[in-house]
Amino acid sequence: MNRRIVISIDAMGGDRGPAPILLGMDRALASNPSLHFLVHGDETQIGKLLDRRPALRGHCEIRHATQVVNMSEKPSRALRDGRDSTMWRAIESVAKGEAQVAVSSGNTGALMAMSIFILRKAPGIDRPAIAVIWPSQAPHGYNIVLDMGADVRADARNLLQYAVMGSEYARLSFGIARPRVGLLNVGKEPSKGPPELRDAAALIESAASERFEFVGFVEGNDLPRTTADVLVTDGFTGNVLLKTAEGTANFIRQSLTDAFRHSVWSRLGALFALTSLKRMRERIDPRRANGGVFLGLNGAVVKSHGGADAIGTASAIELAAKMAETDFPMLVARQLASLGAASPPARQADSGAVGANE
Amino acid sequence: MNRRIVISIDAMGGDRGPAPILLGMDRALASNPSLHFLVHGDETQIGKLLDRRPALRGHCEIRHATQVVNMSEKPSRALRDGRDSTMWRAIESVAKGEAQVAVSSGNTGALMAMSIFILRKAPGIDRPAIAVIWPSQAPHGYNIVLDMGADVRADARNLLQYAVMGSEYARLSFGIARPRVGLLNVGKEPSKGPPELRDAAALIESAASERFEFVGFVEGNDLPRTTADVLVTDGFTGNVLLKTAEGTANFIRQSLTDAFRHSVWSRLGALFALTSLKRMRERIDPRRANGGVFLGLNGAVVKSHGGADAIGTASAIELAAKMAETDFPMLVARQLASLGAASPPARQADSGAVGANE
Repeated sequence: MNRRIVISIDAMGGDRGPAPILLGMDRALASNPSLHFLVHGDETQIGKLLDRRPALRGHCEIRHATQVVNMSEKPSRALRDGRDSTMWRAIESVAKGEAQVAVSSGNTGALMAMSIFILRKAPGIDRPAIAVIWPSQAPHGYNIVLDMGADVRADARNLLQYAVMGSEYARLSFGIARPRVGLLNVGKEPSKGPPELRDAAALIESAASERFEFVGFVEGNDLPRTTADVLVTDGFTGNVLLKTAEGTANFIRQSLTDAFRHSVWSRLGALFALTSLKRMRERIDPRRANGGVFLGLNGAVVKSHGGADAIGTASAIELAAKMAETDFPMLVARQLASLGAASPPARQADSGAVGANE
Repeated sequence: MNRRIVISIDAMGGDRGPAPILLGMDRALASNPSLHFLVHGDETQIGKLLDRRPALRGHCEIRHATQVVNMSEKPSRALRDGRDSTMWRAIESVAKGEAQVAVSSGNTGALMAMSIFILRKAPGIDRPAIAVIWPSQAPHGYNIVLDMGADVRADARNLLQYAVMGSEYARLSFGIARPRVGLLNVGKEPSKGPPELRDAAALIESAASERFEFVGFVEGNDLPRTTADVLVTDGFTGNVLLKTAEGTANFIRQSLTDAFRHSVWSRLGALFALTSLKRMRERIDPRRANGGVFLGLNGAVVKSHGGADAIGTASAIELAAKMAETDFPMLVARQLASLGAASPPARQADSGAVGANE
């Protein structure tokens, strides 16, 4: 654990510019003084912000870059035209070995496409996956769900690899000694669903060990429950269900707002309910669940949410530091190899990524 | 439109017994005096309820049956052991031609399994589908989503049939002259997603007519939006996303309840907010979206929600009456045939149904 931890930061990718990101770095450094940062962004702007924080300055190296990937940019275009961007450079530092992990709060699709393109698949991994943390009734407040769209389809072997990667990620993030893995299906009974899912269930069941438990098939309504800590599905289903949940949450929020605007009395009610509503919103903010990590690449990338403030950025950096400390990508690759779940080191990442194949 | 309309009623299947169902029938009859009912249930119990409603009695024929399919019964078991149930008998009346449509507020899975088993696929339909109404920002308050799990997978041709069935159902339910159909995918761009979805998009696009418009790919967050009136997907994805949305809504409801219980002040806030919360809950009640119709069978079945009161039952009956008046199942089959989208009359329904293959 005495290894020098270097985190590569995309300082310009978020909605709010570099200020909250530097505040978050300062915060993370206060609780972990062994951190070092490669800060990709505008030298003048970042220099000025660092002038006010001399303690942080000593742990930072600024890498000047001014191109910023727009939040609405298409991944394919970002991949083609964004080679001078702070996002590209942040990931590239990991590929070059200058940093162990990259953190960005920029455009998710672009980050995914660039990460897969620059870092490539780790040896023995058939398909990388995107894992998100999903607000749940668990004591620590979240479950892990993957794949959220690195690839659209997954066979039994891919799903087994997701199960292993997801359970390692749950152990790292929440300290769960033996995460419970569930496989998403249309019903809990073993005979349910398409044959390839039943094959995957058999494969995951036989690979279960002291490192994870397999609880069998789970359903869409188990996502926010305590049925499983890790919910595994293919990238097509994952992408659709993430957007379905976000859409549902937004629709409820809008309906709630409309209901409270309905009359003078309901506006008064809203005043009284304000703190409660705020408390709830903080707990289930879909933007928090919108972040993710990319698993199965030659290097770690953490996606912080676009509107992250200092606290949000600090958590993303703390997660990134844990990934660097444990050499997480290699730990996962070794784990897969020991299960015999990995294929021989093979072809480079194909272009099936949801974000990359536009 | 002068045809005698006979609706077969499962009077015992709901959560609240026959009383609210008979109230709903009475209500529906008041606005449409041409309705007749075959009422499947306990003769004594229903007779007593009808004694208080002589007007309704003249439009009812009671068919005595006392076996009731339990709400938690597995579909496979209901199919095997439920042949004397009010649910089975209600569907059987449609198969025998005694009624044009059946209405039940019982166990959804059992109703689906029995409907497919008893009514079989309509000529020229490759696969039946389950369509649900989904709370949305549309002026009439709902979109149509299908398939919700009649079959787990769907090819391009199946998805085209769902598009046609769904748009006919949207016209019938909401009076939309030219429903806009969207195909669920992981992104809106034409190059997104798996190849079979791109094939399906081409097929649906070429079949678009004055009866429906094709708006292309839509995403999970479009379900409650006004992007499309009809959202088409395979039964696996449909089942997972329905349960995901229900799970999300329940989780938010629970979080809201917790937030309001947090302190004395928030409890006071809850009192003031009560009416607003009730108003919102009525709008987005997931149980309302949980109902559905079975499309593509030799006969029409409407699922009313389990806790339906008189108003809910009356709406289900009004929908059923519209289906009977328009001879909806045959209208859909003709529509498919005219598009060349139907296959030659083929094999009977296979056993791929989500509810039936346990």
